[in-house]
Amino acid sequence: MTDLIINDGLTCTLTSPIALPRASGFLWNRKMMLHMNARGFATSQFMQPEPAKYAYAPNLEARTFMQPEQPYYAHHPGRFFYLKDEVTGEIFSAPYEPVRVVPDRFEFTLSAHDITWRIEHLGVRIDITLNLPVEDVVELWEVTVTNLTNRMRTIGFYPFFTIGYMSWMNQSATFDAGLNGIVATCVTPYQKVADYFKNKDFKDKTFFLSERAPAGWECRREAFEGEGGLHNPDGLRDGLASEDAIYETPTAVMKFDLALAAGASATHRFLFGPAFDDAEIAEVKARYLSAEGFNTARRDYQAYIAAGAGVVKIKTPDAHFDQFVNHWLARQVYYHGDVNRLTTDPQTRNYLQDALGMVYIRPDAARIALITALSQQHDNGSMPDGVLLVEGAELKYINQVPHTDHCVWLPILLDAYVRETGHYAVLDQVVTNAATGLSLTVRARMTAAMNWLLTARDHRGLSYIAQGDWCDPMNMVGYKGKGVSGWLTLASGYALKLWAQICADASDESTAAVMRKGVDDLNAAANTHLWDGQWYARGITDDDVVFGVASDPEGRIYLNPQTWACLSGAASPENQPLMMQAVETQLETPFGVEMLGPPYSKMRDDVGRVTQKWMGSAENGAVYNHAAIFYIYSLFQIGQADKGFELLRKMITGPDDADYLQRGQMPVFIPNYYRGAFRQHPRTAGRSSQLFNTGTVAWVYHSLIDGLLGLSGTKDGLRLNPQLPAHWDEVEVTRQFRGATFNVTIRRGEVKGVTCDGVALTEPVIINIDSGHTYAVNVVI
Amino acid sequence: MTDLIINDGLTCTLTSPIALPRASGFLWNRKMMLHMNARGFATSQFMQPEPAKYAYAPNLEARTFMQPEQPYYAHHPGRFFYLKDEVTGEIFSAPYEPVRVVPDRFEFTLSAHDITWRIEHLGVRIDITLNLPVEDVVELWEVTVTNLTNRMRTIGFYPFFTIGYMSWMNQSATFDAGLNGIVATCVTPYQKVADYFKNKDFKDKTFFLSERAPAGWECRREAFEGEGGLHNPDGLRDGLASEDAIYETPTAVMKFDLALAAGASATHRFLFGPAFDDAEIAEVKARYLSAEGFNTARRDYQAYIAAGAGVVKIKTPDAHFDQFVNHWLARQVYYHGDVNRLTTDPQTRNYLQDALGMVYIRPDAARIALITALSQQHDNGSMPDGVLLVEGAELKYINQVPHTDHCVWLPILLDAYVRETGHYAVLDQVVTNAATGLSLTVRARMTAAMNWLLTARDHRGLSYIAQGDWCDPMNMVGYKGKGVSGWLTLASGYALKLWAQICADASDESTAAVMRKGVDDLNAAANTHLWDGQWYARGITDDDVVFGVASDPEGRIYLNPQTWACLSGAASPENQPLMMQAVETQLETPFGVEMLGPPYSKMRDDVGRVTQKWMGSAENGAVYNHAAIFYIYSLFQIGQADKGFELLRKMITGPDDADYLQRGQMPVFIPNYYRGAFRQHPRTAGRSSQLFNTGTVAWVYHSLIDGLLGLSGTKDGLRLNPQLPAHWDEVEVTRQFRGATFNVTIRRGEVKGVTCDGVALTEPVIINIDSGHTYAVNVVI
Repeated sequence: MTDLIINDGLTCTLTSPIALPRASGFLWNRKMMLHMNARGFATSQFMQPEPAKYAYAPNLEARTFMQPEQPYYAHHPGRFFYLKDEVTGEIFSAPYEPVRVVPDRFEFTLSAHDITWRIEHLGVRIDITLNLPVEDVVELWEVTVTNLTNRMRTIGFYPFFTIGYMSWMNQSATFDAGLNGIVATCVTPYQKVADYFKNKDFKDKTFFLSERAPAGWECRREAFEGEGGLHNPDGLRDGLASEDAIYETPTAVMKFDLALAAGASATHRFLFGPAFDDAEIAEVKARYLSAEGFNTARRDYQAYIAAGAGVVKIKTPDAHFDQFVNHWLARQVYYHGDVNRLTTDPQTRNYLQDALGMVYIRPDAARIALITALSQQHDNGSMPDGVLLVEGAELKYINQVPHTDHCVWLPILLDAYVRETGHYAVLDQVVTNAATGLSLTVRARMTAAMNWLLTARDHRGLSYIAQGDWCDPMNMVGYKGKGVSGWLTLASGYALKLWAQICADASDESTAAVMRKGVDDLNAAANTHLWDGQWYARGITDDDVVFGVASDPEGRIYLNPQTWACLSGAASPENQPLMMQAVETQLETPFGVEMLGPPYSKMRDDVGRVTQKWMGSAENGAVYNHAAIFYIYSLFQIGQADKGFELLRKMITGPDDADYLQRGQMPVFIPNYYRGAFRQHPRTAGRSSQLFNTGTVAWVYHSLIDGLLGLSGTKDGLRLNPQLPAHWDEVEVTRQFRGATFNVTIRRGEVKGVTCDGVALTEPVIINIDSGHTYAVNVVI
Repeated sequence: MTDLIINDGLTCTLTSPIALPRASGFLWNRKMMLHMNARGFATSQFMQPEPAKYAYAPNLEARTFMQPEQPYYAHHPGRFFYLKDEVTGEIFSAPYEPVRVVPDRFEFTLSAHDITWRIEHLGVRIDITLNLPVEDVVELWEVTVTNLTNRMRTIGFYPFFTIGYMSWMNQSATFDAGLNGIVATCVTPYQKVADYFKNKDFKDKTFFLSERAPAGWECRREAFEGEGGLHNPDGLRDGLASEDAIYETPTAVMKFDLALAAGASATHRFLFGPAFDDAEIAEVKARYLSAEGFNTARRDYQAYIAAGAGVVKIKTPDAHFDQFVNHWLARQVYYHGDVNRLTTDPQTRNYLQDALGMVYIRPDAARIALITALSQQHDNGSMPDGVLLVEGAELKYINQVPHTDHCVWLPILLDAYVRETGHYAVLDQVVTNAATGLSLTVRARMTAAMNWLLTARDHRGLSYIAQGDWCDPMNMVGYKGKGVSGWLTLASGYALKLWAQICADASDESTAAVMRKGVDDLNAAANTHLWDGQWYARGITDDDVVFGVASDPEGRIYLNPQTWACLSGAASPENQPLMMQAVETQLETPFGVEMLGPPYSKMRDDVGRVTQKWMGSAENGAVYNHAAIFYIYSLFQIGQADKGFELLRKMITGPDDADYLQRGQMPVFIPNYYRGAFRQHPRTAGRSSQLFNTGTVAWVYHSLIDGLLGLSGTKDGLRLNPQLPAHWDEVEVTRQFRGATFNVTIRRGEVKGVTCDGVALTEPVIINIDSGHTYAVNVVI
């Protein structure tokens, strides 16, 4: 099965549309995102400023966050190209939907900066390339149809771009000969006068432009489809009627008559996207709809992606692992950090962790994110549930539900930032909250945040959970104001520990001491009230029920408390192996570590909504990669490199590469979860959510730097402390750090030690780094 | 073409699934509604207490009001039965979707109390009957498969009931052998703790039960469908896998192996609906899932429908007109009046007009509606935008937008009620507003409402429109608080005129006089400021722009002001013909009278959102039947019987019966609109919205009683004033009135006059009516 995916490092190709029916990749720029399925289905959105669509479902869809395991169905939005042999009448569609003829050859290839298909069938090849520009909201499609036979061919070529049900208020479409394209128009539905003023500048038009004039067109979805259905549309049999859609579900279909001599090709370019008016469409057309326009856009977009390449390249004994790290990991981190998952109000937790990843991509952006978040800190030190990024943005969805953990992520980001950049001066930057007017230094704000964490605890010293912490679905553990979070107690300890270290590094020993005292208090409270004999409990409900303990038949053990007890230092060296053993026995699966187990099969009232989670399976207990990567990070922190690497590789590539297929995943991004409940539902376990929005990837990078590769910043330099798995003997790394390049070779040997430019170091830290210099470093472990 | 619809009076049958792809009917009970398309698509909802679904779209649909021109698509929810000849492998599906094989015979038959299909193909007949019970939320399906050939047949029979994408929080399905059915489960999505307590008693299960044990089943939509697609599912080729859905889009498919001797039949019964838990499913099963259960439910439901038969049966020279009036009209009125369009907060305007229809069906229900509405009257006399019908209901959607016309509908309802029942004592009933504690008689509340209408006027005496009047989309004419409505000024005049008459009939001459003065003021203001030379303007915007006038290139004339000027008495006898002429020239079409014309092609800022209407066409200007029936009512009021009848018949049956097809309409209900913009978009003009929620039907009944048949109540008796169109010579009517039955014959003759039980009347009013008596009445006109 593995040959269905070909990964040459730079690109990743799927060779069957059947085996991985959900396989997908994504492209984005700062204003839009396009999630493209191998078979031709697509989910796209753009910011105006809230996420909006220009290709709609066939009904009025609810507005919600991006969903995992996107449900596809016949009329799901997509980009398709029908081909018809005009002599025999045979048809197929590329890439695969809606006709679903398995072609003679199928290749769906993802690269960092484009998505391409090569399909061969009926003696015809169709090469499809999808690009995005850096700045505009428009899809650039280039399609070349080639006659592979040695005879003349007459081919009907029908690009079919779905537009869908736009609005109950108004929807129509027409062919505009001047623009040489189909333009659909709607009015975004609203009922209140105030919304009119918000909506009136919306891009309510969807355009599909062709570089060449079509021989026919159709704007009415139902008319095109007829009784034949999308898989065999009447329009291909009877010709296109070239009629407007008049309050009829619009679509964009064009017909081109291709007469191709033996071996000949024809290339077509198309634009698809939203616009405010025809003038804007004309501008976009002038900018892009030509070979030169496409080429310029490609070049610019490649440069944009290249700017997010990150700080390490590796060569290890594991080529697949290298491919992911070198070509895909930084890209996914960059996506998160540069566009904030295309929301205007990212959850504070997500925003800060996405910035954590950005530390290794564009550290200035990470710093700006920290300052932006701190500028919205409440005057009591707590953080809001979401960070507002644009004027007029509002806290939506889950950000209207009070969570208590947001402060935790501040020192995690700041620690990584100052160690990567050495820019401790940021601590003295003054940050003003525009709403309250309060001006404080970053240092003071950080201390205030940590003090708030210390304050928001109960009489036992455990952290209140309110309506949730990192785990959104646990919204009823503490909604009455009494329930506490075991994880948050331990995570607060880790946060304070990091802030103590930063203070110490910045010569503020007095704050450092206070913080260390706080760490001790938190850890002691956790050990007193939450240690269950072999692992830490997850929390205690409003009604004083301790949960996540051995006596629970469901939800007996949660991963996060074990992880963060290692990070905070709460877990003693004697207890760590007990916890690891419990995790291995109860939570590890062939697809990674489940977040909790056994999964709940029904609502448990005293533990709140966790029993109705949306994750992973009909119950829950997913291999939630964000929790799994915390665990992996902590394993490296306590020196468990073999287990850490085993789980890290499993997250990226599976126990062996064939597992990609079981999960329905192409190895170009890490999804937010793989299905869990392995012991209960082995059939579905391991399946990918296909959702690429996840705090996981920042921590994968963080785990590489601080863990596996051990090439971490310190205040004064670069510490070399690699933790290779036992079966690796040698690794080569190129590490960019504070303007210098470090070519590092790590190998096993008898004589341990580090040399830098041939000089042996007494301590494994390179200091006095010369920006612009390239260092040759050898590490023997 | 007309033979595609066979209407025998009691039933209406469509004989092709192709010609009217959107043809549909509906069934309802007090807790649910099912809109059934001839091809097998379905839209169903039930109250818990807000409208909810148990068969979902394939994606997360927005919650909104019932939409016109329901968009269908391959995975639209539906109820389907696949049949497979196990010898030849041939398949088809009944009724028609998803395989879309045109069968040898197709009949889709609507009756008042059930929906049936008879399909014949491949030598097999499939008879399908759909019933609802009166009380429970469950669909009762009975299917008989008959071998029409003279050889033994082996048939695979696969009922396929879609469940769809239930929720992102949780969704699953399994076969329950004890229940002998598939049970799908979800958690209605929510994020806020408070919603948990609202939602926890929701019926989040969907069940599909069979009376007979199936040979196989499948719960996973995608697995059933496979690569073949819904039109040719893998499950029919490969057999059903009998697997649970585990966070996979659930579906309900069963397989039955039928071995049918020549001429033999097999009958299957199924239940489909929502439930809270398995115990409830078991109860529903015990109650219904048997021949006896089905028969009892049918009998009870027929009795329920029969209770809504209304007060007239007619025999005119127009059989199709009679069929609609005698068998379908009262049913649609009853639906509106008995279940309030399945909302918990009907718009006050709709609620009162639906009750207007109920005057002729169950007058007690009409009175209760009046009292319920008045009990929510604001203390200043104005009416709220919606009437809350259940505890915890909230004003939603359009009911959050302030409209100024709600008081108008009170006297229209009350006038019809007291004239039909003679129950003038209702005026003295005391009505307490539970929220404010204010107790007032109906009489006082009515006067307060009329006084509020008189108050809510500008310096010219014209009525403020705020964010809308009867016409919801006109939300920006007066949102700044200055704009006025021409229609509302005239409608207020009509309302006061009716209230004056009721007061006079109830011997309250002083109030009557005040009201008459108000009518004069309103009419004078309209005549001074809104008469445009040939018709009345629609209004004046916040910015003092008069619109709906001859100088407007778009929206030049609106129907409503002309109508209500006739009703209020504002229009002089000299002006009435001018207006009628303008309407005929500018608004009449083969499909009825458009609501405004020419339709707007773009937003007109100074007239507000009217230019972005959702009605009728890509622009607007629909044949909005509610406005058309007002006009028809007014035509009878001013003695224009020929035109009135012409338009009434056109609304129901079209200029000739073939028009049903052009409109995509089966003649069993009047839709809220037919597409307009006839002069701009002839291709789509006349098309039915398929939306059966409309205030139109109450007024059709009202127009029959007060207009065409002229069998109206007066305070003391029954007035006989028929207004037959010129081409009718004789009509027979049975009229129920105040407990008596009137067998009325109306014919043309030289000697005009009325006899009752053989006695000639001096005035055409029958008084001293003897409840229980049957009167023989002859009217010569």
